[in-house]
Amino acid sequence: MRLVTFRQGSSSAQFGIREGDQIRPIAAATETAILQDLAGAARRPTGPAIPVSEATLLQPVLRPGKVICIGLNYVDHAKEGGNPIPDYPAVFLRAATSLVGPGQPILRPPASEKLDYEAELAIIIGKPALRVKEAEALRHVAGYSCFNDGSLRDYQRKSTQWTMGKNFDATGAFGPEIVTPDELPEGAHGLRIATRLNGRTLQDGNTGDMIFSVARTIAILSEVMTLEPGDVIITGTPAGVGYPRKPPVFMQPGDTCEIEIEGIGVLSNPVAESPVAA
Amino acid sequence: MRLVTFRQGSSSAQFGIREGDQIRPIAAATETAILQDLAGAARRPTGPAIPVSEATLLQPVLRPGKVICIGLNYVDHAKEGGNPIPDYPAVFLRAATSLVGPGQPILRPPASEKLDYEAELAIIIGKPALRVKEAEALRHVAGYSCFNDGSLRDYQRKSTQWTMGKNFDATGAFGPEIVTPDELPEGAHGLRIATRLNGRTLQDGNTGDMIFSVARTIAILSEVMTLEPGDVIITGTPAGVGYPRKPPVFMQPGDTCEIEIEGIGVLSNPVAESPVAA
Repeated sequence: MRLVTFRQGSSSAQFGIREGDQIRPIAAATETAILQDLAGAARRPTGPAIPVSEATLLQPVLRPGKVICIGLNYVDHAKEGGNPIPDYPAVFLRAATSLVGPGQPILRPPASEKLDYEAELAIIIGKPALRVKEAEALRHVAGYSCFNDGSLRDYQRKSTQWTMGKNFDATGAFGPEIVTPDELPEGAHGLRIATRLNGRTLQDGNTGDMIFSVARTIAILSEVMTLEPGDVIITGTPAGVGYPRKPPVFMQPGDTCEIEIEGIGVLSNPVAESPVAA
Repeated sequence: MRLVTFRQGSSSAQFGIREGDQIRPIAAATETAILQDLAGAARRPTGPAIPVSEATLLQPVLRPGKVICIGLNYVDHAKEGGNPIPDYPAVFLRAATSLVGPGQPILRPPASEKLDYEAELAIIIGKPALRVKEAEALRHVAGYSCFNDGSLRDYQRKSTQWTMGKNFDATGAFGPEIVTPDELPEGAHGLRIATRLNGRTLQDGNTGDMIFSVARTIAILSEVMTLEPGDVIITGTPAGVGYPRKPPVFMQPGDTCEIEIEGIGVLSNPVAESPVAA
């Protein structure tokens, strides 16, 4: 099943199930509780199906309670930045203000030109999780999506904490759909994950190479904090990011950046200058 | 003016203005937009005043969009942990699941006994702020409150990123009131800030010793991200935390921890074991 968040004309945002070129609405986009039982929700459409062409797709969860991010989760990416292989995940958070939906522009801020891409598998939480064991963890997953963990590399390194470089407005692209686990290998393992910038492939990895698997990540995070329906976990990026390249590659206004994960979809965003002054 | 979030019996949570032993309700607690103009909101009470004794005080903002935390913002505290004096703030985020209201128990998790206190001045944002200059920054403040940035020290250091140690459920105490800027020195500067654990004073600093002032912090953060009404910024802790003491001091179940900031109030919380299993 493929869940989208969408708006039709000026109506309020809704969750819907996409089937081919049709979307069947199932709930208001604020009702993240439906993520606990998508199969049940799908049986009770709240209105007639509409053509995808009449919908504007939005980020799959509009205001996640948490966006929890795992750093350095692929061996080759840790190495390319000169980092050791972690034995416990490096975790940071993104605020909802840093997110942007599919097709919407990723914004390069006035403060920095060092805007890097990072292709990541996103986990969307369905059922609340606190202190769940790895063997039980996948039951708490509503589905998976694509994420581009856009990072301002100079701001990421202004202190020991990466938060600032990871939280510029509209730098974290998310979508286009939430794909339920039944459509994918267990734990979304073994899926090709790639970044294309203006059509050029710059990352080409596999989710099977994650140091901390989906199930282990959920177990580790839920030892600390309650995961709630609609929370998003982004699971780190494979090798090939822009800053360690010679010469470095950064996203520029006018570019198009695509994140593709096998069986999940393609997240495509233009890149634009952030408008000056509010 | 002193703003509280409260519940009366089983009614839904509301914002109210406390005057002496009475609270005048002014809005539903979900309507953080009222923080943009508290003086205006206060002129339009939504119901009769109630005695404070009939109200349960809750955390001043129930689900802040962001809780942005500044590390190492007092010279003496940076030194006691062996850290250099920062020239750019170390920033991390706390999720809403890590918060707890005044009078409610701070929970020590099964995973760790190294639960430390940190007295902090909390800034509550009133008007949206993006790329504001330091000279304009204080106009965006709705008010100030107390925060106890409860930290599991071993989890804080399991990776380079402090997020996990700062995000255990119900470890960040917040409240009891939001005090508007007109009641305080400009930028809440020069206020005594203290921690008492079971009545013993363990921190005793002054907000005038912050490395990054309230106005400068807002300017720095808003260069990166839009600050929204109800967002909370916690501004670091003075010297005297528990872990570098000889012997170390940690909060234990049965303890009472109080954070007091001059002119703002006293935030008091018992400490309890986290209930096992959900």
